[in-house]
Amino acid sequence: MSAPIRYYYDLMSQPSRALFIIFRLSNMPFEDCVVALRNGEHLTEDFKKEINRFQRVPCIHDNGYKLAESVAILRYLSAKGKIPEHLYPKYFVDQSRVDEFLEWQHMSLRLTCAMYFRTVWLEPLLTGRTPTEAKIETFRMHMERNLDVVEEVWLEGKDFLTGSHLTVADIFAACEIEQTRMADYDVRIKYPKIRAWLKRVRQSCNPYYDVAHEFVYKISGTGPQAKL
Amino acid sequence: MSAPIRYYYDLMSQPSRALFIIFRLSNMPFEDCVVALRNGEHLTEDFKKEINRFQRVPCIHDNGYKLAESVAILRYLSAKGKIPEHLYPKYFVDQSRVDEFLEWQHMSLRLTCAMYFRTVWLEPLLTGRTPTEAKIETFRMHMERNLDVVEEVWLEGKDFLTGSHLTVADIFAACEIEQTRMADYDVRIKYPKIRAWLKRVRQSCNPYYDVAHEFVYKISGTGPQAKL
Repeated sequence: MSAPIRYYYDLMSQPSRALFIIFRLSNMPFEDCVVALRNGEHLTEDFKKEINRFQRVPCIHDNGYKLAESVAILRYLSAKGKIPEHLYPKYFVDQSRVDEFLEWQHMSLRLTCAMYFRTVWLEPLLTGRTPTEAKIETFRMHMERNLDVVEEVWLEGKDFLTGSHLTVADIFAACEIEQTRMADYDVRIKYPKIRAWLKRVRQSCNPYYDVAHEFVYKISGTGPQAKL
Repeated sequence: MSAPIRYYYDLMSQPSRALFIIFRLSNMPFEDCVVALRNGEHLTEDFKKEINRFQRVPCIHDNGYKLAESVAILRYLSAKGKIPEHLYPKYFVDQSRVDEFLEWQHMSLRLTCAMYFRTVWLEPLLTGRTPTEAKIETFRMHMERNLDVVEEVWLEGKDFLTGSHLTVADIFAACEIEQTRMADYDVRIKYPKIRAWLKRVRQSCNPYYDVAHEFVYKISGTGPQAKL
C-alpha cells in the first residue's frame, strides 16, 4: 500500500477548507500538514523549494509528486479514484457542468468575495487603517453582482448549483461565500435562495463543514446556527 | 454525422483567441458564430436566453448542449476526442500539470494582465480620462509579479510551461500576455525567457496564431515580427 497523500493546508484559506471537506466526505486518508499562513510559514525559501514552488496552500505531495491549485488537485485525485462520482461526476457531460462552475468562480465569485473580505477585514487588521465607506461600497457592489448570478442563474430552479444533488461545485462556492461572514457580511439577507442552499450544503457536508469553518464562526462571532 | 460545434467568440477576447487557435490546430470543424462584443451583442436578453446565460464569450453549443468557460469547454471537447493528446494530455498525471497551469492563471496572470490592459487602454478609450502614473505603476507591479513567476518558475529549465512541448497551457498563457501589447507593454524587454518562449509558441501555432492576433497586432501598431 502506498503512503497517504500529504495535504498541506490552512483552514484560514477558502480552497483549503473546500478540499478538507471534500477529502473527509470522500473518506480519503491524508497526512495532515498544516501550514500557518499567519506566521508566514509559506514564505520561506525552504517551503518554495520543498513544498510548493508557488508558495501557497492548498497543495499536495503524492508519493513525491507535487501538485498545487485546488481544482487541479481535485481532478487528479478523482482520476485516481479517490473522490466518489456523486461529488465529481465521471461522465464527461455531467463533469463539464461542474467544471463550468469551477472555472467560472475564479474571476467572479471567488475574486470579488475575497476582495471584499480583504478590504473590510484583513487590510484594516494589517494596516490599522479603516477603509472609506465609498471603497467598501464599490467592493460590495462587485461582490453582489456575482452573488446575483449565483442566486438568479446558478440556483435557478435547482437545489444545488449544478443539479439536484451536492457536488464539489457547491462546496467550493460555499467556502468562498462563508468567508464574507468574517467581514460581517450576511449574504442571507438579500439572497433567499443562497440562504436555503447554504443550509443544504452545510447539512450535506456535516460534521466536516462545521469543523472546517470553526475559525470562521469564531471570528465572525456567529455560531453556525446564528444566521442559518 | 452530427452537426459541428457552434463556437461563439470574438477575437478581441483572450480566451476566445486561445480556443480558436486550439480548434484550428486540432483540425476540429466548427460553425463560426462571431459575437461583436464592441456592439454589446452579448448583452441582450435574447443572447442570455438563447446563447449563454452568463452573457460572455467564448461559449459553445454542441447539438443543443450549451457550455461556457474556456477551460471547461476544452476539457469537454478533449473527452469527446476532438483535441489531440499532445495538446491536452489524457494520462492523468500529465494532465494534472497542464490543469495546474490552467487553474493558476485565472487569479494571477490572467487577472493582472487584463487589469493592466483595462487601466491603460480600455478605460481611457471608454471614459476619455487618462490614468495617473501612480495607478499605472500599481497595476504594472501586480502584473510583473506574475510575469516573474512565468519567467522564473513556469519556464525554469523548460522550453514550454509544462514540459518540452507545446500544450494548451502555453496557448492560453500567450493569449493573455499578447493582450498587453495593446496597452503598449513590451514583455520582451524584461523577460528573456518569455520572449524566447513566445516565439516558440507562435511558431508552433502558426498560421493560426497570427490570424487570431491580427487585431492585436493592428491596434498595437506592431507586426508579429516587430517585437519578436
